[in-house]
Amino acid sequence: MSQFKGQHILSVDQFNRDNIQQVFQVADKMRPYAHRQKRTKVLDGAILGNLFFEASTRTRVSFGTAFNLLGGEVRETAGMATSALSKGESLFDTARVLSSYSDIVAMRHPDAGSVAEFAEGSRVPVINGGDGPNEHPTQALLDLYTISKELQFHGDSIEGMHIAMIGDLKHGRTVHSLSKLLSLYKNIRFTLISPQELAMPQYIMDEIENAGHSLRITDQLEGSVDADICYQTRVQEERFTSKDEANKYRGKFRLNQDIYTRHFQSKTVIMHPLPRDSRADANELDNDLNLNPNLAIFRQVDNGVLIRMALFALTLGVENIVEKYDCEVQWYSNKQNI
Amino acid sequence: MSQFKGQHILSVDQFNRDNIQQVFQVADKMRPYAHRQKRTKVLDGAILGNLFFEASTRTRVSFGTAFNLLGGEVRETAGMATSALSKGESLFDTARVLSSYSDIVAMRHPDAGSVAEFAEGSRVPVINGGDGPNEHPTQALLDLYTISKELQFHGDSIEGMHIAMIGDLKHGRTVHSLSKLLSLYKNIRFTLISPQELAMPQYIMDEIENAGHSLRITDQLEGSVDADICYQTRVQEERFTSKDEANKYRGKFRLNQDIYTRHFQSKTVIMHPLPRDSRADANELDNDLNLNPNLAIFRQVDNGVLIRMALFALTLGVENIVEKYDCEVQWYSNKQNI
Amino acid sequence: MSQFKGQHILSVDQFNRDNIQQVFQVADKMRPYAHRQKRTKVLDGAILGNLFFEASTRTRVSFGTAFNLLGGEVRETAGMATSALSKGESLFDTARVLSSYSDIVAMRHPDAGSVAEFAEGSRVPVINGGDGPNEHPTQALLDLYTISKELQFHGDSIEGMHIAMIGDLKHGRTVHSLSKLLSLYKNIRFTLISPQELAMPQYIMDEIENAGHSLRITDQLEGSVDADICYQTRVQEERFTSKDEANKYRGKFRLNQDIYTRHFQSKTVIMHPLPRDSRADANELDNDLNLNPNLAIFRQVDNGVLIRMALFALTLGVENIVEKYDCEVQWYSNKQNI
Repeated sequence: MSQFKGQHILSVDQFNRDNIQQVFQVADKMRPYAHRQKRTKVLDGAILGNLFFEASTRTRVSFGTAFNLLGGEVRETAGMATSALSKGESLFDTARVLSSYSDIVAMRHPDAGSVAEFAEGSRVPVINGGDGPNEHPTQALLDLYTISKELQFHGDSIEGMHIAMIGDLKHGRTVHSLSKLLSLYKNIRFTLISPQELAMPQYIMDEIENAGHSLRITDQLEGSVDADICYQTRVQEERFTSKDEANKYRGKFRLNQDIYTRHFQSKTVIMHPLPRDSRADANELDNDLNLNPNLAIFRQVDNGVLIRMALFALTLGVENIVEKYDCEVQWYSNKQNI
Repeated sequence: MSQFKGQHILSVDQFNRDNIQQVFQVADKMRPYAHRQKRTKVLDGAILGNLFFEASTRTRVSFGTAFNLLGGEVRETAGMATSALSKGESLFDTARVLSSYSDIVAMRHPDAGSVAEFAEGSRVPVINGGDGPNEHPTQALLDLYTISKELQFHGDSIEGMHIAMIGDLKHGRTVHSLSKLLSLYKNIRFTLISPQELAMPQYIMDEIENAGHSLRITDQLEGSVDADICYQTRVQEERFTSKDEANKYRGKFRLNQDIYTRHFQSKTVIMHPLPRDSRADANELDNDLNLNPNLAIFRQVDNGVLIRMALFALTLGVENIVEKYDCEVQWYSNKQNI
Repeated sequence: MSQFKGQHILSVDQFNRDNIQQVFQVADKMRPYAHRQKRTKVLDGAILGNLFFEASTRTRVSFGTAFNLLGGEVRETAGMATSALSKGESLFDTARVLSSYSDIVAMRHPDAGSVAEFAEGSRVPVINGGDGPNEHPTQALLDLYTISKELQFHGDSIEGMHIAMIGDLKHGRTVHSLSKLLSLYKNIRFTLISPQELAMPQYIMDEIENAGHSLRITDQLEGSVDADICYQTRVQEERFTSKDEANKYRGKFRLNQDIYTRHFQSKTVIMHPLPRDSRADANELDNDLNLNPNLAIFRQVDNGVLIRMALFALTLGVENIVEKYDCEVQWYSNKQNI
């Protein structure tokens, strides 16, 4: 039985190399189920309360699909549950009530700290699906899992790798969380590429350096040639004081096949938390990269389902009996795996 | 076969002591399924049309969960279906069409009478999940069921009990419906505590007295000391002419552990239809009551699932074969029952 | 294995008499499942991505129900997914991501051509649930299927029949698509009844005539007496420059039992794509027709579920193994079939 059983998943701070390893092993086991080669009903009869108090189509559906793939049912709430809150209900009460309808909760909320507060009132484990600018631990885990798989494909490993993070490193929640997780490993080279005004927060850089990793800060792509991972980000428009302010930085670090060829080695893996801004004045990752086999952005999406399946299995304590409830796959899936 | 099979559940007026007893017996049988100790698939393949034309996260999810717990599927609509109505469609047509997609319908709608009107066009049984200020029969049934269970725990019964209803008794749909149901029993003492302007409507009081119950009307908590049930309510802000008008009454009847100790006996059960207004200027039920074992508000929520499961089983005629479709519970539920 | 396996269903132009016949045969086989006389789990474990980026309660629920009736699960998105689009994501990326969560997608979108564009990025088959004024192929197929079934009931067949189409033939997407499908058959008499300003587009009329059918254009009901099918439509208010402009035509072609008796033979079947406008100033199909056994409008709705079940089975390649996964129906359905 894992230490995750019956626990909330609220923050990347809960993770260390051992329990990350455990999550990844369970995620690996989930692959044939997600690819429809196998079918399990291990969570038959279990109900996920999928509470998205902030709109997020893809994260919401990813959680729901992951639960379905384990055989469970999903009861969903999308959009702000304004009625009860406007009647003065505390988040504790909301949690006490809504958690009574399900066996586990996945929750997104616009306010930092709100998911942890909800968890205090909840009668079932809560998985944080993003609480505003604060935490989004399943994204950080799927990013790290993707890095690990991509490097493994090239015969490399996280230890000793070189990662270039590009763009709005100040507001990007995903690069903050990913940096924290990477800091748990050894001998990583970080190249942080951003305009000075959008630099990585100092406390994250301190954490990286205190963990003994090497850190290079620059506002140029030059010198990243031997990066194993190129993690591109979006300018987080919604976190700027104005759209005009944000627009000053949009398009600063475009990446397309030509730039890729000039600045990176041929095995550099390209990642992005999505959505990527494809408008002409931003074009963070040009569509001509879609043919580049090292563009891993859609594999990140696939891995997100695996990671969420793993976390559901672990928190509900079924990670070792998944295969026991295998059943026949009778239908044809036309799914093209990427 | 019960008289409920194939019938709509629209109003508390459909209930008498006999069929209430039947609903409660089926609800009792549902407890191990709701607590995940047992699992049934008796409604495997059945579809609930969960039509919430007015926002209500908890009631909507409670209906959906109840149907899932019986093994059925849920197709959901949340929010006003404005498109067809704005194109001039009658509620009869809407009902005829939407009911064709499911085996049973749970419906909430802001307009009084609309659920009954929908039921006339429906091809399947319709359960009223609240039609504006009019009816909300599953709430009244879960309240009565909770009273019955709480009294039973203390060795008491509904007959002969003393209930104090507190607050906005004029606008509170739940206290009206609950009073009607209680009137079916014998020798109940009602203490109605409210500002004079928010008194219980005369026709309800007439019904109570005509049924031979005793009735005391007051605007003070004093004298309620031997109440078995203290049913606290919210000021129904949305039914006042203005927010200022409503605010005159908010906070009039606060309840906290100290007031409870002074005005009630130690076994008085505290109920509330939720959400409770926890803002400082209202504070209907202080959080310090959360530790009071007689605070039954979250048990009301749990009982709501049981009552809704019972009504689904009865209207679909499966109440006697639930156990026949029991199947293994393979996953661990971390649910803390209250 | 059918030619539909793994294919998108985007347009009526994909259909010919042979593959329509195939869809209809599978739809026939679906009837006992839709009527709850039989239950199959052939799509157990499959997930439908039900993506309704434009509100449409009935079409959305019809797709979801059809998938549930085959044993599959539904993950749903209703309303515009504005967040990712406003962050500059391309429809290709949205498709690549969202299609990764399901085995098949049903999609509605307000923009013409958007569903086909989404299909290009999708990793699974996409069924068009309506892309603005452009295509709605499942509606056209259910209309044709209904015509075929109603005529069969009267001992007639599509070849040689007489259909009267009434109302706003200019903007009505359904009559355009239905005309295209009917053109595939032989010797049909079309009577097109509309104000001159709302006439059927010339290219559709050309298609009808080029296929060798007879065509009569009129602005009067007179002379339709031997129509086998009377297909009434709604004035498509939303496609006019103003509401006032649209209102000039509302109520022009009312139909009630009295008018029906005067203008049609007793076996003329009445159809309408719904919703019908029941307001006094429009009253396209009076409620007194509800008692007319040839009013087929609700049978169209029922047939919509059969057609969608058939398309799911065909695109996922399970049309020949549906019965292999039959299982017991243990619950009673009170469904009144029309």
